[in-house]
Amino acid sequence: MNVNTYRLALIGFGNVGQGLTQIIRDLDFSEYGAKFQVVAVCDLLKGSVYHPDGLDPAELLEAIALKGSLESIHAPYRDWDAIRTITDTNADVVVEMSYTDLKTGEPAFTHIRTALRHGKHAIMTNKGPVALHYAELKTLANQQGVELGVEGTVMSGTPSLRLGTELLSAARITKIQGIVNGTTNYILTRMEQGNTYESALSEAQSKGYAEADPTGDVEGHDAVGKVVILANLLMGASLRINDVDRTGITGLTVQDIETARVAGERWKLIGTVEKTSAGVRASVQPTRLPISHPLAGVAGATNAITYTTQLLGEVTLVGPGAGRIETGYALIGDLLAIHRKKQK
Amino acid sequence: MNVNTYRLALIGFGNVGQGLTQIIRDLDFSEYGAKFQVVAVCDLLKGSVYHPDGLDPAELLEAIALKGSLESIHAPYRDWDAIRTITDTNADVVVEMSYTDLKTGEPAFTHIRTALRHGKHAIMTNKGPVALHYAELKTLANQQGVELGVEGTVMSGTPSLRLGTELLSAARITKIQGIVNGTTNYILTRMEQGNTYESALSEAQSKGYAEADPTGDVEGHDAVGKVVILANLLMGASLRINDVDRTGITGLTVQDIETARVAGERWKLIGTVEKTSAGVRASVQPTRLPISHPLAGVAGATNAITYTTQLLGEVTLVGPGAGRIETGYALIGDLLAIHRKKQK
Repeated sequence: MNVNTYRLALIGFGNVGQGLTQIIRDLDFSEYGAKFQVVAVCDLLKGSVYHPDGLDPAELLEAIALKGSLESIHAPYRDWDAIRTITDTNADVVVEMSYTDLKTGEPAFTHIRTALRHGKHAIMTNKGPVALHYAELKTLANQQGVELGVEGTVMSGTPSLRLGTELLSAARITKIQGIVNGTTNYILTRMEQGNTYESALSEAQSKGYAEADPTGDVEGHDAVGKVVILANLLMGASLRINDVDRTGITGLTVQDIETARVAGERWKLIGTVEKTSAGVRASVQPTRLPISHPLAGVAGATNAITYTTQLLGEVTLVGPGAGRIETGYALIGDLLAIHRKKQK
Repeated sequence: MNVNTYRLALIGFGNVGQGLTQIIRDLDFSEYGAKFQVVAVCDLLKGSVYHPDGLDPAELLEAIALKGSLESIHAPYRDWDAIRTITDTNADVVVEMSYTDLKTGEPAFTHIRTALRHGKHAIMTNKGPVALHYAELKTLANQQGVELGVEGTVMSGTPSLRLGTELLSAARITKIQGIVNGTTNYILTRMEQGNTYESALSEAQSKGYAEADPTGDVEGHDAVGKVVILANLLMGASLRINDVDRTGITGLTVQDIETARVAGERWKLIGTVEKTSAGVRASVQPTRLPISHPLAGVAGATNAITYTTQLLGEVTLVGPGAGRIETGYALIGDLLAIHRKKQK
């Protein structure tokens, strides 16, 4: 079988970038007719290296493990900034994994536009630019004849977006409900098990599920970003962040959780997108679900989405919503999708 | 957008054939660039009609609803048998929906081989030929340059096979566990709710979930067929029906169910396929699952499969496992897959 090589420029080399690199180091994709080669890595803190013939993934990971930087990597070109790494390397695919900003989408939005304008595929795990600017990016990608890969922006590598767009869309999706934030689901699960909000939160922080400032998760901002992505990708809506009714979990008390439990119900932070006669409506809200609801049993940091369809009724996908290897796999899915398109 | 028309010959016109015809009557697939036209229907009991320019789906359904037969349909050709309907009509795609025989796979196996040999795509919801002869059929389809569609043989229209082959295979599936028989899951759910096996079974029969002779479901034969399909399609195994360790649910007592309940567990009939050092092993067995297992909460006639993967851990898909429209949708999925291949 013919094997196509795809040259990758990694913008950001945190957990996800390292997870992707680890997958590329350990696994072979030649049975799919594809080979993935990291030619450039650019990270604000860890440094920037470029080798047109490819960098060794094992050396990249070792350098980070030993020194926390890419300084020890031998490469003919180094210290290029993100824009130059995108425009001047021989990469075919730009992998955007810089930090998420749900207000401006920057700097990722500029990185992705630059990649597309230079005729390079862009794949990303960063919700910001997708929640804020999907339509514009998709139009630009189509004009340029390149692909946009966004699977990792919802449920990490669990293929929730492709399940919707490729396998369920012909069944006519009318409603989407999801547990799309693992941190809050972990906290709610621990509260059900008798912990206070404060102790559940600090446990989530110590496990690395929640950040020092947990606002983005517990007030529902992260879930809103994902709900906008689901609405715009799967229902052809053009929602903005502010169109989503948002309530976080900070108002829920141990008493609320206990009252629900006694009634055979559970509180979950549910993102909902629904087709109505007034257009697509979306919300993120703590919701009391009967124990028999397919989302009620989803415990801990696990995520899940229930698609309600005209032809199949409810179809639910349950899987990881975070993790370095798991999110790295989302990018592998995007790369293989680019590869399949190229075969046409 | 260009629209390709696919001409279908329906072999069998029971629930699934009618469900597919209803979808074609009611929904338009031109946004996918495809149009589906029924040109021939051949059913042992209801009759056989062929019109090279297409039959009206509404008239077909009305004839069955009013008279239970196709006798009133105006068509230039009629009373052709299945083989002639496959070979001598202008259909591009043969849709095999005759009755299931897990011992010989006939008559479906002959129908499908005939279709493939005549250069026609074959899609099916009939487990028999797929569980017994998948490798041979796949080889023949590849030789002939046509497609084989089998999505509806497991979990009806819930896209469990395509999720595995297209979206999860690169994550390396190491184990598959599923509730793939709705009848037994319905019976077990009702037993948990305090019913005896006998009353739960007769209820399942009155709801149309179980047949008059329930052996195929309650002794696990149906689930074994599906487990063989999962093993051979998703793990590249070449298992036969007799390679699967099989135990049905008839040995389970109300007391067993109650003992599990008290321990916070549930009995489910679980089909398992696992990669081991000794090759792929498969079984169908009543299994006590902790309530936290993603399959434990799957109630009633709903089906579900958990894929354990190297890169993503566990990913679970929950959805309908039967139903005329639901199974009809499996065939729409297969048709759209043929269409996507044709675009390449």
